[in-house]
Amino acid sequence: MQKEFIPYHLPFPTHTTGLSFVKEVLESGKTAGNQAQSLICKELLSVDFPNSFSFLTTSCTSALEFSTLLAGIQPNDHVILPSYTYPSTANAFLLRGATLSFVDSLPNSPNMDLDKVEELITKKTKVLCVMHYAGISLDWEKIERIKSRYNLTIIEDAAQCLDSNYVKNGTDYPLGSLGDFGAISFHETKNISCGEGGLLLLNNKNDITQAEIIYEKGTNRSAFLRSETAFYEWKSLGSSYALSEINAAVLRAQLMQKEQIILSRLKVWNEYKLAFSKISVPFVPEYAKHNAHIYYLQLADYKESVEFIQFMQKEKIQTLHHYRPLHSSDFFNDKHDDRSLVNAINFSNTLVRLPIHHEVNSDRVIETVLDFFN
Amino acid sequence: MQKEFIPYHLPFPTHTTGLSFVKEVLESGKTAGNQAQSLICKELLSVDFPNSFSFLTTSCTSALEFSTLLAGIQPNDHVILPSYTYPSTANAFLLRGATLSFVDSLPNSPNMDLDKVEELITKKTKVLCVMHYAGISLDWEKIERIKSRYNLTIIEDAAQCLDSNYVKNGTDYPLGSLGDFGAISFHETKNISCGEGGLLLLNNKNDITQAEIIYEKGTNRSAFLRSETAFYEWKSLGSSYALSEINAAVLRAQLMQKEQIILSRLKVWNEYKLAFSKISVPFVPEYAKHNAHIYYLQLADYKESVEFIQFMQKEKIQTLHHYRPLHSSDFFNDKHDDRSLVNAINFSNTLVRLPIHHEVNSDRVIETVLDFFN
Repeated sequence: MQKEFIPYHLPFPTHTTGLSFVKEVLESGKTAGNQAQSLICKELLSVDFPNSFSFLTTSCTSALEFSTLLAGIQPNDHVILPSYTYPSTANAFLLRGATLSFVDSLPNSPNMDLDKVEELITKKTKVLCVMHYAGISLDWEKIERIKSRYNLTIIEDAAQCLDSNYVKNGTDYPLGSLGDFGAISFHETKNISCGEGGLLLLNNKNDITQAEIIYEKGTNRSAFLRSETAFYEWKSLGSSYALSEINAAVLRAQLMQKEQIILSRLKVWNEYKLAFSKISVPFVPEYAKHNAHIYYLQLADYKESVEFIQFMQKEKIQTLHHYRPLHSSDFFNDKHDDRSLVNAINFSNTLVRLPIHHEVNSDRVIETVLDFFN
Repeated sequence: MQKEFIPYHLPFPTHTTGLSFVKEVLESGKTAGNQAQSLICKELLSVDFPNSFSFLTTSCTSALEFSTLLAGIQPNDHVILPSYTYPSTANAFLLRGATLSFVDSLPNSPNMDLDKVEELITKKTKVLCVMHYAGISLDWEKIERIKSRYNLTIIEDAAQCLDSNYVKNGTDYPLGSLGDFGAISFHETKNISCGEGGLLLLNNKNDITQAEIIYEKGTNRSAFLRSETAFYEWKSLGSSYALSEINAAVLRAQLMQKEQIILSRLKVWNEYKLAFSKISVPFVPEYAKHNAHIYYLQLADYKESVEFIQFMQKEKIQTLHHYRPLHSSDFFNDKHDDRSLVNAINFSNTLVRLPIHHEVNSDRVIETVLDFFN
């Protein structure tokens, strides 16, 4: 019998509802950003982020770029960020002319080693950008300590983190709401998706006026639409960050099914954890409550990881490496100082992601993985 | 009898076809950018732009930003651009740290006065950015002369110009394809729309490799997807410019009806022209073949223009001013030199746009406008 292909990812099917919302949008003719569907999405999101102000964006990348404008980054400002992350995390700052220092991962987790941050701080350091890998929270207490000691702006790349939490004294704090700014992704590959899309969370109310202007191509159109001014005009740097209503309609349907989507992933994640307890289990600290965005295995070395991926491929199961470390990339290598970031390189070589979504035949994946290791 | 409201704009209804394509996308799970629907859109667009390489983007703003990265603009490079345009035209360059000089409009057209460009050129001038207002072509021969004399990069803000042409010796040259880079908008308010969306046209083949990298967040993912490299990594500055497949599906349906959409607008435009021949007709030079994106009237002064808009509003007809000149905006005023750009200010004060779309009751609009002037 032909085995069915198991893709790494598959968006959760909310087609019927999604299509009915898209139909509403197309029939209304109100298809540009920040109209009826976007407002509904923002209301749905306000349950998760009651203390944040949210802007739907065209991508998590644009949410990050939006945050760098809000943070007022100037040429030669210094930014500290992880090496094991997506290039957009770094480009957002480089586009503002910032200089970058990359930080290694922890030995036991792809997440950045926060104990390596302070030694990099100079008078020019303006931002600490953090990224929670696989929706697994960083140690926020450490970040708070660094922030208050050096008065840094914290930008939280929470691309993978919708419905992930940092837990302190029994209370859940949603990732994305902890930094000064948080960026979340709704890309096709994320738990909750609308093709291309993102979210900027403003966690300080005094940023709202400027954020509205930057979001509206540097104009005071938002105030104009509220009849607070007779006309609108150019006020600031800015861009076109608004997510179209068509994508917002699709996002709305996804957000309505959020619990079910996350539960279906957690089920698979926990099955993997049980089955691979003696092989490889992602490190989840006690303060992290994650959203099952990624289940990864760590192989012995790069060679074995390639063999593993090829083995799984023959069995029609798609598995994937993840990031190449930014500090040693073709593009940045000659700008990096001489610190060797061995853990980031190690995760780049050995981390392999297993399929995780509502349709995964986890028994077959587990059996095949165990076959490889036996 | 209650009069029906006539909105300034209404996207042409391609809902049924559009929805069926969106359904395809959602069912496939392939919702992120640059997949099946985008390829079809690019094929449809290649009929209009046979000599250009096209990238679908999240907006015309992002297409312009994309072009400024491709043009390699560095801090303090000098850019010359019109004052009577949308803030995004200017922000795209300011985001790269460029210095700007704004040019006045012509006395008889909102389009920029190309005879005022050369006096502004310095050794630092790198780009001449031009914008064809209302889809009505600038005098491209003048632009070519300036380009070749001073070796400038020409960036063509063709936001309003899909299906507009520059005509020379009986041949039509599509706007957007004439500069080194051309940017087109598919925003809700444009003739052909998909909510938020845009198009970057590359008109030089040697820009393609770098464009593919910038488009894919500064990585060589495009080469990777063509199996030209074993993995993809960070190679350059870049951003997330790709239009989602969901929007591309909507765009595809619109592009399929392009002729009909433009014809339905041209019909209204020509009716207005005939009716208002003694009041106000937009100046269309012999070398311009336009797409009926905008029909504007010029009122005597700002006061009359406001009275006109209010008069039309009472009659339930939406009419609109357009741009506020960028050079004298709150944001740029103190950075502008002391040239007074009287024509740009004049068009800002006196230009009013009439409703134009497939559903306009043009008889009622004409009658009401004539009522105002009598």
